Order: sequence, then C-alpha cells, then structure tokens
Amino acid sequence: MPQAKGYAAHSAESALEPYTFERREPRPDDVAIEILYCGVCHSDLHFARDDWGMAAYPVVPGHEIVGRVTSVGSDVANFKEGDLVGVGCMVDSCRHCQACNDGVEQYCAEGFTMTYGSPDRHDGSLTQGGYSDKVTVSERFVLRMPEGIDLKSAAPLLCAGITTYSPLKHYGVKPGHKIGVIGMGGLGHMGVKLAKALGAEVTLFTRSESKVAEAKSNGVDHVVVSTDEAQMAAVAETFDFMLDTVPNQHDLNPYLQALKYDGTHILVGQMQPLEPAVMGANLIFRRRVLAGSLIGGIPETQEVLDFCAEKGITCDVEMIDIQNINEAWERMQKGDVRYRFVIDMASMKNG
Amino acid sequence: MPQAKGYAAHSAESALEPYTFERREPRPDDVAIEILYCGVCHSDLHFARDDWGMAAYPVVPGHEIVGRVTSVGSDVANFKEGDLVGVGCMVDSCRHCQACNDGVEQYCAEGFTMTYGSPDRHDGSLTQGGYSDKVTVSERFVLRMPEGIDLKSAAPLLCAGITTYSPLKHYGVKPGHKIGVIGMGGLGHMGVKLAKALGAEVTLFTRSESKVAEAKSNGVDHVVVSTDEAQMAAVAETFDFMLDTVPNQHDLNPYLQALKYDGTHILVGQMQPLEPAVMGANLIFRRRVLAGSLIGGIPETQEVLDFCAEKGITCDVEMIDIQNINEAWERMQKGDVRYRFVIDMASMKNG
Repeated sequence: MPQAKGYAAHSAESALEPYTFERREPRPDDVAIEILYCGVCHSDLHFARDDWGMAAYPVVPGHEIVGRVTSVGSDVANFKEGDLVGVGCMVDSCRHCQACNDGVEQYCAEGFTMTYGSPDRHDGSLTQGGYSDKVTVSERFVLRMPEGIDLKSAAPLLCAGITTYSPLKHYGVKPGHKIGVIGMGGLGHMGVKLAKALGAEVTLFTRSESKVAEAKSNGVDHVVVSTDEAQMAAVAETFDFMLDTVPNQHDLNPYLQALKYDGTHILVGQMQPLEPAVMGANLIFRRRVLAGSLIGGIPETQEVLDFCAEKGITCDVEMIDIQNINEAWERMQKGDVRYRFVIDMASMKNG
Repeated sequence: MPQAKGYAAHSAESALEPYTFERREPRPDDVAIEILYCGVCHSDLHFARDDWGMAAYPVVPGHEIVGRVTSVGSDVANFKEGDLVGVGCMVDSCRHCQACNDGVEQYCAEGFTMTYGSPDRHDGSLTQGGYSDKVTVSERFVLRMPEGIDLKSAAPLLCAGITTYSPLKHYGVKPGHKIGVIGMGGLGHMGVKLAKALGAEVTLFTRSESKVAEAKSNGVDHVVVSTDEAQMAAVAETFDFMLDTVPNQHDLNPYLQALKYDGTHILVGQMQPLEPAVMGANLIFRRRVLAGSLIGGIPETQEVLDFCAEKGITCDVEMIDIQNINEAWERMQKGDVRYRFVIDMASMKNG
C-alpha cells in the first residue's frame, strides 16, 4: 500500500503532528494524486477538535485539495498521469439515489463520504484528507483544474468557492439583483466575488467597522455595519437575497426585514438551532424564504472552477508551510487571515 | 350616508352585539354590495379580542364576504347592479408599488387596507367587515363570483381558500408531488382539497387520532398522527412540500425532516417566534426551504374562485344566523366546527 505523509490530530485536545499512514491501493476507478496545495477550512478545526461530536481519530484534515495525477486505475476514462486536478469535501456517495443522479451528491440519501473522517464505502477504512502528500480518490469525485487557473488560490474554490457559488446559482442570483453577503471570512469574501461576477449589486454586512474599507477594496458596492440600527433600518425591504456565511448563532430577523417581498435568505454556515427565534411573521407577511445550502455537487464544483478561471476570480490566500499549521489554526480561530490559508505541500518534504 | 346593520365588538372582553353604523357614500370607483353570506375566520376572533395588539373598536369583523351589487360608482367598468361578488381580506392598497403592480397587493409596500380595523386611505374612517348587511368596496378589490358556484360554501374561499391556494401555486405544487398538510381546520381542509385538485398526493398530519377517519373521508390519501414518533420516522425525507396551517407555536423540525432534499415547508399560520428553534442543519443539509405566505393577491383570488367553480370544490360549512355568532366563536375556539361557520345574512333582518 502506498505510504503517505501527513499531519494528524490524535484527539480533540492534541495539536496536529506529523503522521505516516497508508493510502489504499488504487481501485479500477481510482485516481492517485500527488497533493500540491491544500486550503485550510474552519471545518477542519471544528472536526478535529470534535466541536460537532463526530470526530474519528487519527484525523488528517483538509478538503480543498489541488494536485497532480500520478497514476489512474484501469477503468478511469477522464484523467491521466500528469493532469492537474482537485478534490473537495466529498470522495464518494451511494451513486444511485435521486440526489446522486441529479449531480447533487452532497444530498445523497445515504450520506456522502467525507474527504476525511468517514468510513470508506468499500473497505471501511477511515478516509484521510489533504494535509498530506498524496491521496487516492474515485474518478467521479475528482475535478479537473482548468487551463490557466492559479493553483494555489484555486484550492479554496473546492469548499469556500462552491459553498457560496452553488446557492447563488440554485436560487437564481442574476444581473440587477441586490444581494447582501453577511460576514467576510473565507466564505464571505468568495460570496462577494462570485455574486459580483454573476452581475449582482453586493452589500457586505459586517459587525466590524474595521472591515468597511477592506470590503470596498475587495469590490463590494456597499457596506452596512450590522450593529448600527440606523444603517439596518435604512436598508429595510431592499434586498433580493442574503447570503449568510456566519457560522455562529445570530439573529436572522433584522436581515429578513432587509429583504424585499419574495426575498431569500440563504444559510450556509449556521447548523445550530436558529436562536434568537425567527419570527414567523417575517416570513409570512412578505412571502420571504429562509433556505439552506450545503457545499455543491460535483458537476457544479467543476462549473465554479471553470467559471473562476474564465472570469479571473481567485481566492485571497496566505501561503503557509505544513509545519506552521497549528499556528495557522490559532490565527484562523481569531479571524486573523485574509481570507484563507493554503498549505504549500512542497513543505512536507522538509520533515 | 347609507346606514348599515351589523354585529360589533366594543372591547377585547365584550361579546359581539348588534350595531348600527354608516357606510361611506360610494366613490366613483366603488361598488355597493348587499351582503348575503360571510364566513367566520379565526382571525376575526383574534382581532376582536386584541390577541395581536392591533385592535380598533368598535369592530365589525368578517372578511369572507359574498353579496350582490346594489349600485356602482360612475367609474366602475366591470360590475353592475345585480352581479354576485365577493370581498376578501383586503379592500385597498397603495396601488402603485411593485407588489401592487405585480397583483400581490397583500405585500403592498405601504401595507394593504384590511377589510375591517384599518383606516380608510381616503377619508381615514375605520373599515368595517362583513358581519353586516352591506359594504362598499373599491372595484379593484371586488371579486366576481363565477357562474354556478355555491355561494354559501364559496365564502370561505375568500380567506381560507386563497391562503392555501396561493402558496400551492406560487411554490409550484404539481401532479406527482407529495405534500403534507399540517392541521385540518378551516385552512387545512381547504389545503387538502386544493392540493388534491392540483394533482398532488396528500398526507394529512394531525395530532389527533380522532381526525384520521374524518380526513380520509375528506379525500386525503394518507394520514400521519404527528405525535407518534414511529409514524413520523416512517415518512422521513419523503415529501416535496409541507403546507403548515397551524397557527400556534409548534416544533417544525420533525416536519422539515420529513421533506426530501429541496423540499419546501410553507408557513401560513404561525406568526410568532418559531419556537422550539428550527435547526439550521435541517435546512442546510438537505437544501430545504422554509417559506411564508400571506393570503393572496386579487388576481389570484379570482383565480381560486374560478378554479373551485370549475373543479366543483367547496368549503365544508355550517350555516349560522348572525344571532348565534358568539356561540359560534366559542365553538370555533374549541375546534368544534367542520370546518367553517358561515353567517346567513338574511338572519340580520330578524333583529
């Protein structure tokens, strides 16, 4: 079995540390990949620290993977050695339910196989992610990196990018629409860029005055400081959409009230109970919609990569060596990153 | 000014009692109507007892009005003396905002004028509803009763009917869809009939075993007793839509979990804070939608009347005399009505 080098957490309390482990022998439909870059997602930390009560150890996190194909199984038709490829949050699914047939494998009736921390559907082994030098993934879940895309800054498109792109497309954001993006972290800043590229007029909602200038330099049309009641009142009933990237509990009602009738509030981050409670009247009296969205399917992930290559959209990244991952996690927790750390996996060779 | 006879509440605590008041002189766009029947909606009671903190007294309730035109103003083009007409929950709106232009006057940016308890937009007088012998309403807000429709049982279509029809149409319920209707009161039983007529497979969710047989005799395909966890578990991830007619606070999460991915939960009754809290994960992990809907616009209200006439759909009603309205309200509060009281306004002549 191919030996892999990576960084793993062995418990909810432990730091990530060097870890040597085995990747599976490629199956007929498998693509073996040398990892070049891996984005650092807040989910990596939540999972490893067992914030969601679903951790399995040891865990090698990472689901924003860009790499080069080193070999392919006998049934692989679409990739060959040397191809530049990506792997996102999913590495498998049942492949036969309605959702899988619809190309939205993230809603697989049997649950998709996560890139790390899931039992493999065939051999039961624990999947391990992209904080490592290689990975083996079924062809169906491998993305093609488009010509000319910057590989480093493209890595986060595989989670932060598709998570914001998918609902913008699904709920129909178009030129002329007014959209509010709530929060400007990894997801929020991609939401801003993608909504702009889709032709919408974008307002960033942020709690911090300090992000106003930063947001404008990132291309947003308007900024509303959400803690300022007068600013919130001034935008009442003016938006077609809200893209809510905030992962923590927060009051949705002021944002709902900022939507026009028939407006849609899209949640991509807040999994917890929606507290303070949403007022039923804020939905009923203006026929507003509160919707959720989870990452995106494989066809749509290819689409966002191609879309970003065509439009020249990149994620703002700060490159790190794998040896600095623990420090990066600490900084990410404090929001001290503009806007995504990406690991240069060449550093793995340094020990 | 025309003298009207009706029944009014003079405070939150008082019973409805006979009340003589003035209707306005018809304006050029007004239609003067002799009221034949008026449905009794739970909102009438909530408003009169000031449950919503918006009451104005004296109030003559009633917004499911069917009557005959007695005269029309000089600018009225579409109605003439003798026409059979209806009036629902709205009697005016700003008439120039986006919502009004779109024919969804219930979402009027300036707020619509309620059939009772609103200041008239022109003379400031308090509007008074259908528990009376006559009413004067601007042509734009008058509906035409289609040929052959049963007038008594059509009255509740003007609120209970349109409130359930509008979201079924707006959110796209079609043949082949599976829809759950939550609650079987005035709204719920119309939701069942209308969803069936639109070709959907209808499951009634009820807390009471006692409604199972009754629901089946009313045409539902399946009944789930929502307090039975095994029955709820058996329908997990099987519905395209939920039409939630329950006005009281209740836990939406078990119903959300009964929706397929991309399923839509439509609230038409619960205005209060949604408690227990909705789990964000129940929306995000299956891209489900939680939506609200309020009555329906005037064009769509005409549509539901025509649709019901064509399909032979009626509301199940129990006719009462106006003198029995207080007793009817007591029974309505206990859920002791199948499914709507309708006042025969001929009884007004009896004193």
